[in-house]
Amino acid sequence: MRCEVVAIGTELLLGVIVDSNSSWIGEQLALAGIDSLYQTKVGDNFGRMEAVIRQALERSDAVICCGGLGPTQDDITRDVIAKVMGVELRRDDAIASDIRHRFEVRGRTMSANNLRQADIPVGAHPIPEMPGTAPGLVCPIGEKVIYCVPGVPSEMKEMVAGTVLPDLRRRMGVSAVIRSRTLRTWGLSESGIDEMLTERMAELDRLGNPTIAFNASGIEGIKVRVTAKCDDEETATRILDAEEKILRAILGEAVFGIDDESMELVVLNALREQGLTIAVSESITGGILASRMTAIDMAMTTFKGGLIRPDRDPLAPPDIPPEARSVRDATAARDAFNADIGLAVVAADRDEGARPGTVFITAVFRDTPHADMTVLPGDRRRMREYGVISALNLLRKTLSA
Amino acid sequence: MRCEVVAIGTELLLGVIVDSNSSWIGEQLALAGIDSLYQTKVGDNFGRMEAVIRQALERSDAVICCGGLGPTQDDITRDVIAKVMGVELRRDDAIASDIRHRFEVRGRTMSANNLRQADIPVGAHPIPEMPGTAPGLVCPIGEKVIYCVPGVPSEMKEMVAGTVLPDLRRRMGVSAVIRSRTLRTWGLSESGIDEMLTERMAELDRLGNPTIAFNASGIEGIKVRVTAKCDDEETATRILDAEEKILRAILGEAVFGIDDESMELVVLNALREQGLTIAVSESITGGILASRMTAIDMAMTTFKGGLIRPDRDPLAPPDIPPEARSVRDATAARDAFNADIGLAVVAADRDEGARPGTVFITAVFRDTPHADMTVLPGDRRRMREYGVISALNLLRKTLSA
Repeated sequence: MRCEVVAIGTELLLGVIVDSNSSWIGEQLALAGIDSLYQTKVGDNFGRMEAVIRQALERSDAVICCGGLGPTQDDITRDVIAKVMGVELRRDDAIASDIRHRFEVRGRTMSANNLRQADIPVGAHPIPEMPGTAPGLVCPIGEKVIYCVPGVPSEMKEMVAGTVLPDLRRRMGVSAVIRSRTLRTWGLSESGIDEMLTERMAELDRLGNPTIAFNASGIEGIKVRVTAKCDDEETATRILDAEEKILRAILGEAVFGIDDESMELVVLNALREQGLTIAVSESITGGILASRMTAIDMAMTTFKGGLIRPDRDPLAPPDIPPEARSVRDATAARDAFNADIGLAVVAADRDEGARPGTVFITAVFRDTPHADMTVLPGDRRRMREYGVISALNLLRKTLSA
Repeated sequence: MRCEVVAIGTELLLGVIVDSNSSWIGEQLALAGIDSLYQTKVGDNFGRMEAVIRQALERSDAVICCGGLGPTQDDITRDVIAKVMGVELRRDDAIASDIRHRFEVRGRTMSANNLRQADIPVGAHPIPEMPGTAPGLVCPIGEKVIYCVPGVPSEMKEMVAGTVLPDLRRRMGVSAVIRSRTLRTWGLSESGIDEMLTERMAELDRLGNPTIAFNASGIEGIKVRVTAKCDDEETATRILDAEEKILRAILGEAVFGIDDESMELVVLNALREQGLTIAVSESITGGILASRMTAIDMAMTTFKGGLIRPDRDPLAPPDIPPEARSVRDATAARDAFNADIGLAVVAADRDEGARPGTVFITAVFRDTPHADMTVLPGDRRRMREYGVISALNLLRKTLSA
């Protein structure tokens, strides 16, 4: 089964918008075991859209067209698809009254243009999910099919997940359930994980199910993705649970979470479970640590506060060594905000004889400092990001100790 | 003149990497007055790459191939281009010794694979810019041309700016210089700017040069781009300078900077020029304001510090009204870090009778509070971002008052 993606919109070609839709769809197709061999961007031009869609339909079994479904004169995807299908557009009364209704409840006046969105090719079916005013379409052409979804990412995603992928799976004749779980690790290298998992991966190669793949996601660590293919949801969950257990045993405490769990979410959950609060002191990380924690804990019930300031006066000679400063600052933050734990990130300066990028991190918990020293790679911007994730990881280890 | 972009790499189709290269190239081509009507992603597959590149060359005058120039067996762009050109690959001794040298100076051992990067199609010219180990190529085919650049964004950009665009301009027979300048505004809507500029744009339509376009870049405001096309650099600069002056007169203080100047850069520069320092107090923005300012002022010479904490105890009844809290917090931050200016962002709570999203911002400067109240749109995440830019803007206006 092959499915191409055609992203429609002149603004995509001009670089006004980056086409992240095709990437997302490509990932979903890959997870569903569907090949996506070509992805094309084309502008809002009838002839070129028609040519691109016809070619896609020729070399693939299915085509997902993304964009050009809005109410303006530029939005001609419906017209082009009707031409490719060799049919007329006809107003769909149900969609028309749905669109009217959406404007009414918001108390906005609808311009006549908006009803263009209810004109769909004869033989096309509207996609039931309709989070915006642009209806998506399933357009069968012989044995093949074209799906039209809006370019607005949230609307596109709802339609692809709710209708397009299930329809593609039905067409593949696959009743199989494909489910994945991603183990998120930090502190290991890609080649290190490769080595640790060699034996298990060879075993899984023999078994055939589940499969494992891993990829680096920059500074946030390496992701190990387990994918199970089976007859039903329960079996998939059982397989994923069992494999997660095996992989956690191999990878140890490098695994900090699964799927969309960020390090700060994991740490804040652990703090909440243990009924603890935290405050931070930042110098080199300059507020990034606080901003990531408050993005999760917006009410600041667990994250009690942060102090951002240089950890020493750069013009004065060093008063105390950087290790000691990080203990001092962690304690100061804890006391200033009356928290259970204080966490500080301190950068050693060149005039202190430290290697550039040397950072001292301390978590003060029950009056015991848990310290970590690390040399951070890269430029100052990278050092800041790396310092934040290192500090969160020290806190995670302190809490699980 | 038409130029297509072909982005090469299976990981692009799988959504492991988002193809932002094509967008960037598309923007550069548009600025240079070159049409880019199609952009295609294709995997690391000989047959499919060949088909896509041949088709691109057929319907356009030039093709930029991005990616597949690395040293591994997957990297077959060189081989495919040689086939399309109908020539052999031949080792380029100059490139080979250059690659060897790069490994030597870094003290790393070179594997034999790396020399594959020195095998180039007969008749192709290496691109002089070579920031990495992958050489870019200019491959003439009759009257047309294929450019090969690496997929690493920084390497790609250096080659496109340094060689590809000048070569395309030469081929267009255009000796014209095209230069743009972007005026960054905040606080105006797209339709508001449209209205303010109607007359000037009509005038420029008659004159033909420079041209104006504007686009919203989300929460960071609307960008107004002026593009001048003329015979030489000096004339371009003169036209842009003159137009900037005219537009600034129309748009007033909504213009906060030009080109890549962020609001925090502008504000920090203004503080430095006036020899002033600043400290902040954040509640709802939770450290984002500090992290953006310290990203620019990493040594914290102008940004003296930040306090992040809830601006009131959510369990206790309101002590003082939110306006007064923002003055209190701004003053406290200023005094805590011994700065000249204190800036605070305070969110009013529902139990204080405020509309959701109501935020009070105060800058305390020379003992005078400059206050601003604003109702921030959207969810809490958007409110945070909006709060930061609103606070920076208040500070900007305070400094220029």
